[in-house]
Amino acid sequence: MKIALTQLNYYVGDFEKNISKIKHSIQSAKKQKVDLIVFAEMAVCGFPPYDLLHYDSFVGKCQQAIADIAVECTEIAAIIGAPYVNNDEFGKRLYNSALLLQNGSIKEVRHKTLLASNNSKDEHRYFEPNKKWGTISFKGEKIALTIGEDLWNIDNYASGPLDILAEESLTIIINIAATPFHYDLWKERTEILTNYVLKYKLPLIYVNHVGGQGGLLFDGGSLALDKTGKRLYELKFFEEDFTIIDTKVTTTTTSPKQIDNYPPEYLKIGLIHDSLIMGIKDFFGKQGFTKAILGLSGGLDSAVVLLLAIKALGRENVMSVLMPSPYSSDHSLTDAIHLLKNTKSPYKIINISEAYNLFRQTLEPVFGYLPTGATDENLQARIRGVYLMSMANNSGYLLLNNSNKSEAAVGYGTLYGDMNGGLSVIGDIYKTEVFELARYINYYKEVIPENIIKKPPSAELRPNQKDSDSLPDYDVLDKILYNHIEKHKSYQELIEMGFNKELITKTLRLVSISEYKRHQTPPILRVSPKAFRTDRQMPVAAKYWK
Amino acid sequence: MKIALTQLNYYVGDFEKNISKIKHSIQSAKKQKVDLIVFAEMAVCGFPPYDLLHYDSFVGKCQQAIADIAVECTEIAAIIGAPYVNNDEFGKRLYNSALLLQNGSIKEVRHKTLLASNNSKDEHRYFEPNKKWGTISFKGEKIALTIGEDLWNIDNYASGPLDILAEESLTIIINIAATPFHYDLWKERTEILTNYVLKYKLPLIYVNHVGGQGGLLFDGGSLALDKTGKRLYELKFFEEDFTIIDTKVTTTTTSPKQIDNYPPEYLKIGLIHDSLIMGIKDFFGKQGFTKAILGLSGGLDSAVVLLLAIKALGRENVMSVLMPSPYSSDHSLTDAIHLLKNTKSPYKIINISEAYNLFRQTLEPVFGYLPTGATDENLQARIRGVYLMSMANNSGYLLLNNSNKSEAAVGYGTLYGDMNGGLSVIGDIYKTEVFELARYINYYKEVIPENIIKKPPSAELRPNQKDSDSLPDYDVLDKILYNHIEKHKSYQELIEMGFNKELITKTLRLVSISEYKRHQTPPILRVSPKAFRTDRQMPVAAKYWK
Repeated sequence: MKIALTQLNYYVGDFEKNISKIKHSIQSAKKQKVDLIVFAEMAVCGFPPYDLLHYDSFVGKCQQAIADIAVECTEIAAIIGAPYVNNDEFGKRLYNSALLLQNGSIKEVRHKTLLASNNSKDEHRYFEPNKKWGTISFKGEKIALTIGEDLWNIDNYASGPLDILAEESLTIIINIAATPFHYDLWKERTEILTNYVLKYKLPLIYVNHVGGQGGLLFDGGSLALDKTGKRLYELKFFEEDFTIIDTKVTTTTTSPKQIDNYPPEYLKIGLIHDSLIMGIKDFFGKQGFTKAILGLSGGLDSAVVLLLAIKALGRENVMSVLMPSPYSSDHSLTDAIHLLKNTKSPYKIINISEAYNLFRQTLEPVFGYLPTGATDENLQARIRGVYLMSMANNSGYLLLNNSNKSEAAVGYGTLYGDMNGGLSVIGDIYKTEVFELARYINYYKEVIPENIIKKPPSAELRPNQKDSDSLPDYDVLDKILYNHIEKHKSYQELIEMGFNKELITKTLRLVSISEYKRHQTPPILRVSPKAFRTDRQMPVAAKYWK
Repeated sequence: MKIALTQLNYYVGDFEKNISKIKHSIQSAKKQKVDLIVFAEMAVCGFPPYDLLHYDSFVGKCQQAIADIAVECTEIAAIIGAPYVNNDEFGKRLYNSALLLQNGSIKEVRHKTLLASNNSKDEHRYFEPNKKWGTISFKGEKIALTIGEDLWNIDNYASGPLDILAEESLTIIINIAATPFHYDLWKERTEILTNYVLKYKLPLIYVNHVGGQGGLLFDGGSLALDKTGKRLYELKFFEEDFTIIDTKVTTTTTSPKQIDNYPPEYLKIGLIHDSLIMGIKDFFGKQGFTKAILGLSGGLDSAVVLLLAIKALGRENVMSVLMPSPYSSDHSLTDAIHLLKNTKSPYKIINISEAYNLFRQTLEPVFGYLPTGATDENLQARIRGVYLMSMANNSGYLLLNNSNKSEAAVGYGTLYGDMNGGLSVIGDIYKTEVFELARYINYYKEVIPENIIKKPPSAELRPNQKDSDSLPDYDVLDKILYNHIEKHKSYQELIEMGFNKELITKTLRLVSISEYKRHQTPPILRVSPKAFRTDRQMPVAAKYWK
């Protein structure tokens, strides 16, 4: 049997576009005499649709789309994901389903059993879990048709649908999925799927989404494994792709891995790099934006964001704004201009000193003294925010936010100032990873001036300020943060791990009290298993950190 | 048997405070010879703890708290809610549990069966659902001990734990809960609980939380019903309360309803009014803030927010800032000052014209022309935002946001301008409801000048601007919005309901394209069943609105 794996970049709610992409793939598969073409979970509506699923009209359009696509399914069958109405009197009103389309109509429907309620998914909100199982017979094959986390049950469930399905004489496992990317997903996915294959001694087809959906990214990496666990084919990472597998043909060779496209020492950072570029491209493209604007400080974070944006949108579409203040060092401006010479991208310079002085003078009679400390520092950041947003409003730019995950974690940023933006590009990347990302960008071509990478990080909001004046060194800070945020280690456990007591106290307290700031950050491109906003959900204020 | 109902305002993660409140109630109940004292769902840690439940140390502190409280339980027993570790090999690592504490230790544990995955709760993220049932025998009573949504299963579940428990010979139902407030909850709660009582012919005790937790509000309203459905006692709304019921004593009188404290024509608005005051008080108190600041425009929204804040925090703790621009009408300033004369609360005036002109002049060479249109309007709002945040930073005020739900829905507000704030007070209240709220505030004492209520709403960001220039009249707009947002009516259904096609088109398009703004709003005090942020979860950008 010839099976096509179709890895597409869907648009949430854009039925016309999704149907057109799907039909085009079916037509092309028919020409190649494919028996069965497989699309991803929730392909018809795009993923994640969130509360659009609460609208009857949206669900109706999904049904209409399926009917449209089914018409195309003659001399070929298709497996495709869609929401499906639960007609029982009780329970959530939808299932998350996989449909077999054949001879112009829906031939079989299977629902997802193991609904995900984890970091980035909350499926119990919309879907009733499946309670009936059954294999699908198609052209002599007995298919176990499963959806996403139905096979992701190694840790969380005593048993999955396959344990029940496997009592019948299966010949192949098909899993349609919407698996959000993070930098270790490739490893997790290969392990989980290979374990299934080895346990049940069955070949497996896995079809995933690709593309960015707001902050959530999908890497593709759809897979075909034979019953010995050998990789027959792995589809591209971060791009649409398509392949045909013939279950009758046995091959002795293993297909190449997508991760082999990266230098081994930069594998994690290379994946992050490519996912961010895809994420920027789709965040802009799917909202109809073409041009970005950002504040370029002469520091590392904005330099990396500039480079990623240029790779995603083209150099001519990324406007940098340099906004020196009285506290900006000379090298800030020269370093930024050196970088812009390398990128050959447009920029403007706006000196904020005049506005800064005016606000200070206006506030003096209100306060009885001139602004000092954090008030004064935030003032500069907010004036820059006003200029950037004015330019964005005037020219239709989308403002990129340059905050990194270390800063976001400890609240080192000004609300309505440098925390502004329509999209946070590196908000899920710790500062030490931003350094690696800069090195990786320079690995292929030296474009970020060495001085930008080497100089000590500074917000330059008062004379001779350095991040290390008020924060631990990023090497240590990031380790504490990673263990606290990604690994849920708390005060006592971090002490047992050997971190300094005072540093832990300071860091955990900062993380806790700055939660309110993270409630107002822009969408963040998610590259880790634990991104702010998507994955970590905390009370705005809780008296608990120790 | 004497049963005490204890309705407390818990602090998320503040174990010391929660334990102290709980122990104090136990001691007081012991003096009154109470047999069984009942606390709310998740009382030990406060609700909602969100991802604090992912931390072992947090769960450990819950266990320690239970042990501490159990020591107090001699000559009395207590029922209390807490997370409880699931020791099975598979499944989520916690249960949402009700514990019976007796003779200094945990005597019985029951887990929640029907986990909530709805608007404001996502319990499958943390908890394994219960699969074993069993009544509790205590001093001759056979208790069905249930948790929150275990009894909330009228619509969503084919059967609940009570259907199984009821096969045994029960004598009383106890339900410990954490039911988030909305303006119709009192009705829903009474109906659901009374239906249970009538179905099973058993008396029922329901104990709820009271107080604000970020944007989520809890109204209390704990209930004791006899087996005929008669109200033995209803605890106060929006306040801590305590009562003792004797199951042996039969009474022929029905206890008064809390809703009878409101004028019938203002019931909904009265509940909203009181819930918002409680919400502001707790949002400030639980984060250690005492003082608020807000921009007072002379319009209705900021007037209502000022009054609510004064009622919550005291007149001396609410600073108003009047920031006229070149486009402010004369009456804006005079109306605002008239209001402040009534409230006798402090204020400052900062004219933004100078800063506005400076930004315009600085931007002219950048644009090649002076800012116009939305760019120019947003500029004024953002300058005001800078002043307010500078004052907040300087004096430790928390900035109140004045946006209403109609504006938030259609994106009629400036990001990093008038959308700033630590808390959105009326962001879950449509403009027409803000009018009613103003009337209700004036019902007891005329404090908001009539001119503020009567004049046509305007943002005053260009000469003679009115909201009605660019938006439908609020009467119609709010009806479309309510049906689209609360009732999930889409384009075609709204047409069938008789709304104007063009108005629907315009409104639904605005709601859809302004989703990105709502992703960055402050926490919103939730008073409806469908608040932005808490309840409505939408893709940042989806090509779907029609």
